[in-house]
Parts: sequence; structure tokens; C-alpha cells
Amino acid sequence: MRTNQQWLIAARPDGRAKESDFKWNETPVPPLSDGQVLVRSVYLSLDPTNRIWMNEADSYLPALKLGEVMRGIAIGVVEESKHADFAAGDLVQGLFGWQSFAVQPGPALTKLPKGLPVPGTAFFGLLGHIGLTAYFGLLDICQPKPGETLVVSTAAGAVGSLVGQIGKIKGLRTVGLAGSDEKCRWIRDELGYDAAINYKTENVRAALQRHCPEGIDIYFDNVGGEILEAVLDLINLRARISACGMITQYNAANPMPGPRNLVNLIVKRARMEGFLCLDYSDRAEPAFQEMIGWAIQGKLKYRVDVVQGLENAPRALGKLFDGSNAGKLIVQVGPE
Amino acid sequence: MRTNQQWLIAARPDGRAKESDFKWNETPVPPLSDGQVLVRSVYLSLDPTNRIWMNEADSYLPALKLGEVMRGIAIGVVEESKHADFAAGDLVQGLFGWQSFAVQPGPALTKLPKGLPVPGTAFFGLLGHIGLTAYFGLLDICQPKPGETLVVSTAAGAVGSLVGQIGKIKGLRTVGLAGSDEKCRWIRDELGYDAAINYKTENVRAALQRHCPEGIDIYFDNVGGEILEAVLDLINLRARISACGMITQYNAANPMPGPRNLVNLIVKRARMEGFLCLDYSDRAEPAFQEMIGWAIQGKLKYRVDVVQGLENAPRALGKLFDGSNAGKLIVQVGPE
Repeated sequence: MRTNQQWLIAARPDGRAKESDFKWNETPVPPLSDGQVLVRSVYLSLDPTNRIWMNEADSYLPALKLGEVMRGIAIGVVEESKHADFAAGDLVQGLFGWQSFAVQPGPALTKLPKGLPVPGTAFFGLLGHIGLTAYFGLLDICQPKPGETLVVSTAAGAVGSLVGQIGKIKGLRTVGLAGSDEKCRWIRDELGYDAAINYKTENVRAALQRHCPEGIDIYFDNVGGEILEAVLDLINLRARISACGMITQYNAANPMPGPRNLVNLIVKRARMEGFLCLDYSDRAEPAFQEMIGWAIQGKLKYRVDVVQGLENAPRALGKLFDGSNAGKLIVQVGPE
Repeated sequence: MRTNQQWLIAARPDGRAKESDFKWNETPVPPLSDGQVLVRSVYLSLDPTNRIWMNEADSYLPALKLGEVMRGIAIGVVEESKHADFAAGDLVQGLFGWQSFAVQPGPALTKLPKGLPVPGTAFFGLLGHIGLTAYFGLLDICQPKPGETLVVSTAAGAVGSLVGQIGKIKGLRTVGLAGSDEKCRWIRDELGYDAAINYKTENVRAALQRHCPEGIDIYFDNVGGEILEAVLDLINLRARISACGMITQYNAANPMPGPRNLVNLIVKRARMEGFLCLDYSDRAEPAFQEMIGWAIQGKLKYRVDVVQGLENAPRALGKLFDGSNAGKLIVQVGPE
């Protein structure tokens, strides 16, 4: 009988999650019932939202109980199937959790295409929930028009790096915020952002003013907090703010106050709208087709930061919050 | 030669506007040039947004300079016209300011219909900018569906009192916040709000929870601040927040921080959108027709608080911010 390695959630984090908030567990892989599928995990995605899932309160998904396997989006290979829609060898994605094997009911799985002209990590770096978030968060929520100015926070992150490039494809002026000079160089020189701001060393408000001489039409917000406030001071009439994430808030024991200038939403008749990629799964197929096309043409680049071994997942998660990851953060759980 | 009585803006208010921030002035009514119209003011509307107009910074309208006539929306009668579209006796509306006479270019005036089955004050209490704000802020920005729960702040105010009634006409469950037991009784017993909360004496969060057992689908926000934060904790999936005003912020020397839970916009895929009635002037006609119809059927009531005499305008403005006005606040500048 094979052993399933798992990370269980052991404690509610106080601030950032630390390794002791998780507990390593080994348990036999259970036998399959009718309708179930056994998946061997290959890649586990680490995302800022993982921190939200560790809280005691329900979010857009039910709260995890202490002692449960940590929730996570993963890609894996079907090892054994008692569901008619799946067969051994299928490539699948789902909320398989932080574990090496997952037994799932068939409907919880999404079958992935094989033989795409992109590597396996692209299912997280370009496609999957990251791609959906960037694509629909910009195109659907913000309805960009050529010539408009787009600002993106965490512009070197998994989502932000795609948003800026899709913005360029759509004819926008793009300004990205990132947390190091290396990241700023990367988004400007490699991804084609028109301007990059190092939010750790520059005065963000002054830099935004300098790089957005005609104001800000679209803000793709991954952070909330002070940067949101600075952006709100510079929005144009009928600006759109895509509320994708508020990473500044996730670790806070006492959430920080919001921006002092929300009233600018009224003055500028602007819209701030939250969304989740979950809401777009029925429109995913044509979006991925288009994004793969852009990637093949070299217009849509991405980079992944692959950490080897499930045992390193808790430590790796911290990289998202100190900004030390370079590209989409992925844990390789097993061989492709 | 006739004398024009005016209130000029004399100082930038520190906090709430006080009488010494204005200066009384008397000056001859100037002769008309071609294309101009002389209007004698009848009713001057006092609105929370007046406070915004006194600030040094531009808002959705250019800032006033010190020494200028205070800006204000008013209704008046044409006394003399050198513009082909207007004749003596016409009833007109415009930004005539805090003065007894205004000389305006023709295009700055909107002609009002005469002989409507509503009194003259209805142009502010039911129609005009107040009616447009309530009608489009609810129906256009929030797209209500029957059975949804609507929360309205300043529900006994000029706009809020209409919003709740239009909500009932559209089949919503309506919950209003007001600042006195008398106002609460009025909106519940006379206007048909399903529930009323006295935000000065009750725990707003607990009361909202009690009166919105199925959560909040629509919030018509006139106040911002803590009430917005309490509402955000209770919003449902795909909630809509119509950002109409943030009266808690207008007097603040240092604007208060925003809500700590803006992240709920993401969790609930909700939308917060600012608007101004100015944007809906081209759709005003059919909206007013419909509202007059509702008023005649007794489904849309309003009350006005008419202060006599332009000289009392500065003192009267304070009533909007301490909540002592009962209904739409209007200054009667001269006879109808």
C-alpha cells in the first residue's frame, strides 16, 4: 500500500503563516470507491490566497478545519479511475491539496489537454487560475480601450506580469509596480511595461504622477492599502479598478484601514469591482486558446519559480509575502 | 437699478462651514448682453455637496475662488431675456448660486415645465438633481432585482427617502438608517421602509444583521465611514454599492480612513461604483415622467424643509451635517 504525504493545517497563523502552522502527516492512500479518481500530484500552486484559506472564518470557500489537509490548487496525473470520464494517464487539475496523492470524486476534476506547445508548468504560469485571473480581470472587469493608462501592482508577480503584457497587446500604456530593481528591469525590458516603479525605494505617489501624466484609467489591484490610496488620487473620469487581491491585508491580525479617498470614486464616477477566476471557468477555453497564441508569438512571456519537494511548501509560501519569488511560485511534488 | 443680494465665499472652512466662511454682499444687477438671461431666484437647494465646493481643491466641478458667489443649484423665473430660447416668465433651473438674481448665458439654463401636478418645491424634493440621483443611483448603478435586500443610509434625507420608496416599487426589501426616532418612524410608517435603524442610538452592525437576515444585495451609500464598513461585512455575492455621497468625509480636515474590509469586494465579487446625477441629464425626461406618475399614485412621497430668506442660507447649511433638517433642505429666496 502506498503512502500519502500531506501537510495538515495545525494552527491559525498569527500574521504570516509559519512552518509550525502546518503539520507533516503520512497516511496510506485509501482504496477507491465508485465514481472516484486517484490522482498523483505533479505541481502544487502556491498563491497569496492560500493565506486567506488558513483563517478561521469562511471566505469565498468554506474555512478549513484544523487537522484537515491544507487546501491547494494542483495538477496531477490520474493513477487509477472508477469514474467513466477519467482514465489512468489523464492530466487533471483540481483542489487536490498539499499532498502527494488525492482521492477525488470525478466532478471535482478538470481534464487538461495534452500535447500543448507549452511546458507543464504553463498550466500555472500562463493558463489555469493565473491566466484566467489576468485575462478576465483586465478584459472583462476593466473593459480597456486603446490609449488608456493601466497601472498594475505586483507587476512582476504571476498575475501582474501577464496583465501588463495583455494590456500592451490591447494598446494600453502600462505602468507596473514591483519590489526590486531586478523585477522592475524584467517587467520593463522583457515584458514591455512602459514604466516600472520600485515601490520599496521610490515615492509611489510621485512616481505614479510622473509615469501617468494623463492620469490612471485602469488599476489592476493586487495589494490594496497605501498603493490603492495613491492610485485613487490619480484616477480619471470613469476609471475602473479591478480588485483582484489585497495582499497587504492577508497577514494582518487587525486589518489596516482602507483608503482615505474612496470619495474619489464618486468625484470621478469610477468603479471598483471584485472578481475571482472561479467565476470564469465556463469561458476559460477560448481565453486559453488566445493566450497560447500570444505566447507562441512571443507576446506573452511568463516565468516560474519551481520549488522542489512537497516538504518545502510551508517555507516556500513565505516567499509570496516577502516578494522573494521570481515568477509564479510552484512546488514540484512529483515527476511529470 | 435693482440690488442683487449675494453670499460670497470668504474663507475655506475648517471642518464644518460656519457663517463667517461666507460674506454678505449687495451689488447692482448688471445689464444684459446678447445671449444672456436675467433670472430671479425663487428656491435655492442646499445639498451636502455644497461643502465639497468650498474646498480649495477642484472636485467634479472647478474649485471656487475666495470672493466668488457661493455656488448653488436654484430655480427661478426669467425676468428678462436676450436669448431666443427664453422669455420673461419662464421657469428655469441652473447653477445660479447663492444670490437673488443671476445673469446667465442661455445654454446654462434648463427650462422647467409649468403646470405640473406637483408644487414648485417638487423640483428639488422629487425631481431635479435629487430625483435623478435617487432614480439612476438605484436603478442604473445597482440594477435591482425583486426580492433583493436594499440598505440606504441617510434614509430620511432628500435622496434616501426617495431611494427606499423606489426600492419598494421595484419589489425590494428595504432597510433604512436615520438619525432620530422620529425620522425612523417616518421612513417606516409613511414611506414604507421595511425596517429602520437609528444609527445614533443602535448598534448599527447588530441591527443590520437583524434586519437583513439574508444579507445585503444593494447598498445606497450616502455616508461612507463606519456604516460602509458594517455593510461590507454583510454583503452578498455580487452585491452592488452605489457610492452617492460620503457625508462623513466632507467636513474632515484629515479624511478618515476607509473601511478595513474592502477585501470583501473580492470575496463577494461585489461592485462599488460612484456616480453623479449630472451624468444622467439626457435621460432625465422619462425618469421624471415615471416619478411624477408614482407621486400621483401616492407611491412616492417627499417632504421639504423650507428655510425662508437667502440671509439664512449659511446657518441652514449646517442642518445637513447635524441631521436637524426634516426633508429636502431648500431656501426660499423670493416669491414663486
